[in-house]
Amino acid sequence: MVMTESNESTRNGVDTATLFATLDAVRQAPEAARFQFRARNEWVNGTHNRSTIHDYFGVGEERTHERTWVFDADHPAVLVGRDNGPTPVEFVLHALAACLTAGLANIAAARGVTLTEVRSTVEGDIDLNGILGLDPGVRNGYEQITVRFTLKGDAPAEKLRELVEQSRARSAVYDIITNQVPVTITVDTQ
Amino acid sequence: MVMTESNESTRNGVDTATLFATLDAVRQAPEAARFQFRARNEWVNGTHNRSTIHDYFGVGEERTHERTWVFDADHPAVLVGRDNGPTPVEFVLHALAACLTAGLANIAAARGVTLTEVRSTVEGDIDLNGILGLDPGVRNGYEQITVRFTLKGDAPAEKLRELVEQSRARSAVYDIITNQVPVTITVDTQ
Repeated sequence: MVMTESNESTRNGVDTATLFATLDAVRQAPEAARFQFRARNEWVNGTHNRSTIHDYFGVGEERTHERTWVFDADHPAVLVGRDNGPTPVEFVLHALAACLTAGLANIAAARGVTLTEVRSTVEGDIDLNGILGLDPGVRNGYEQITVRFTLKGDAPAEKLRELVEQSRARSAVYDIITNQVPVTITVDTQ
Repeated sequence: MVMTESNESTRNGVDTATLFATLDAVRQAPEAARFQFRARNEWVNGTHNRSTIHDYFGVGEERTHERTWVFDADHPAVLVGRDNGPTPVEFVLHALAACLTAGLANIAAARGVTLTEVRSTVEGDIDLNGILGLDPGVRNGYEQITVRFTLKGDAPAEKLRELVEQSRARSAVYDIITNQVPVTITVDTQ
């Protein structure tokens, strides 16, 4: 029996049969794709605080991750913190790299490309005169972010580049960063 | 000797003397505020990948955090992953909560308010018909994010709310999410 590569069920660690079945299921029941993700944060001391990630809503019901993850964030000493964790803006860079890379593996699998290596470096340039309130002409967030991928797989360079382009075109975090998401903040002082 | 609260050097774990000295130093040398933060990501398998956060540039030189942090990201099984870490979009929620909370502690300290409790829950609503490519009218990222703070401290409710408002107005991650950051992606297929 000869199987073409595109019929193999798992490629790049992606179960493509399940991936396509999931796509078909959502096509039949689009409301299954409504998710709500959550983080719960607790202030520790100074700029040090801690988030817990565990529960979420998706495919019509409340769900939980298999584990509960806890992440500390802080500022380094040079920014008047104690370096108990990365800065919040560094987590944004991780999120962007992770989103583009996960999408890349899925898209490569769907297109029959076997990847052997994917690395990326994400750099975010920020002028802290913004958040320090010292220059009204400087924004608070990153001025620019640069992502550099190194990619190896069994496809020509042009096809590998197309995988990254498609991942960018379908990335949730890329969209969040490059476009605008409305954020509502409420405060309970009880 | 009687010290007023605003003369105490540390409040909320924030060394306000150092905070104000830092502000003065940057006022004198604005280029010290140019920072570059970085994350390095490596694909593991499927939607599972891992970022390392360690070095950054700031105050005119290359620097390193006191530790090297490693964070895994993945999709849960219901999104065809293996749940080896939070999803990339959940890290964005952590980053937002962490940024607003760190700013809040600094601002409260600068204004002489002692905080006793700061908690927040961040919820992000997302319709995965976007990233799944099933509905061109649905965006890839969050449709909306809601942050709910619970705040206690030695100030009237209105003043506590003003602290959150000022933290929002000076938050790097809030700016990144609610406004647009240009992202450049390069691919090396060597």
